[in-house]
Amino acid sequence: MDGLEIILTRRSVREYADRPVPREAVQKILLAAMQAPFSGDEPPWHFIAIDDPGILSSIPAISPYRGVSSPIPAAILVCADQLLHPDGPDLWVQDCAVATENILLAAHALGLGAVWTTVYPDADRMLGFVNLFSLPDGVIPFALVTIGYPAVRPPPRYRGCEDRVHWNRW
Amino acid sequence: MDGLEIILTRRSVREYADRPVPREAVQKILLAAMQAPFSGDEPPWHFIAIDDPGILSSIPAISPYRGVSSPIPAAILVCADQLLHPDGPDLWVQDCAVATENILLAAHALGLGAVWTTVYPDADRMLGFVNLFSLPDGVIPFALVTIGYPAVRPPPRYRGCEDRVHWNRW
Repeated sequence: MDGLEIILTRRSVREYADRPVPREAVQKILLAAMQAPFSGDEPPWHFIAIDDPGILSSIPAISPYRGVSSPIPAAILVCADQLLHPDGPDLWVQDCAVATENILLAAHALGLGAVWTTVYPDADRMLGFVNLFSLPDGVIPFALVTIGYPAVRPPPRYRGCEDRVHWNRW
Repeated sequence: MDGLEIILTRRSVREYADRPVPREAVQKILLAAMQAPFSGDEPPWHFIAIDDPGILSSIPAISPYRGVSSPIPAAILVCADQLLHPDGPDLWVQDCAVATENILLAAHALGLGAVWTTVYPDADRMLGFVNLFSLPDGVIPFALVTIGYPAVRPPPRYRGCEDRVHWNRW
């Protein structure tokens, strides 16, 4: 699929085949994440790539997402280092969100499926991941993306949001 | 280019050829923006697509971005309707950032170039766009993307951020 088609056909994928995700695929996905634009001089993000079955099995208790199948084949926790953006979350939230979108799109481009589970600003989920990974002070868990080969590949769904487009004036 | 290549090779493009951007291209880019995932039941975003030369010429005074060539062939102002996410900016900032990234990637996929200029949370730029478009109460200008055919297409630049990747533990 070409670049535009990847963007247009991506869907959230919550149910995965019982098939491992190769580390090489996760590494490509992380490269894509790190090509995302960011504000300022340095990106705020860190990524915890997770393929350890024991750690993966503890995720649903922290970050429940209705309909995500278990076991989860792989996951990426996107984190923000607040020390790199000391002015507050307004900009690092943008930077981390953009990197997370690249993860979703790259997974789709590689024939995988993924879904974004919101972590920030949910205090309970944030604390759960801080504890699970003993995150250092100032590192905020932002979003969890679960990744696997789709059990069923959802068909494209085009949103009819034409009322959200305005030409040259509100 | 395939989907992964589009993500990996995108660069910010600030200098544009003196060539108009067809409305059909902007419409495809907006379709891509609206395929972005969002939190909750309804997306917060609205898009003002700008190809009126008079309006475009007034943008640099509101939202200066070092190195963006003038005249700008086209632009999209991504806005958030706060009334759709009344719990505050934490989630609508994520949703709008993701839609903005899809705009950048779709422009690149179509052979165009684009650059994201931060608007939110810069109070002066936000006020400038609120006034330019007489935005209704609760509608926040979030980001401005300028779009055109690249004067020069920047070569891919791969970031070496391997220190930002952690496997299974911090």
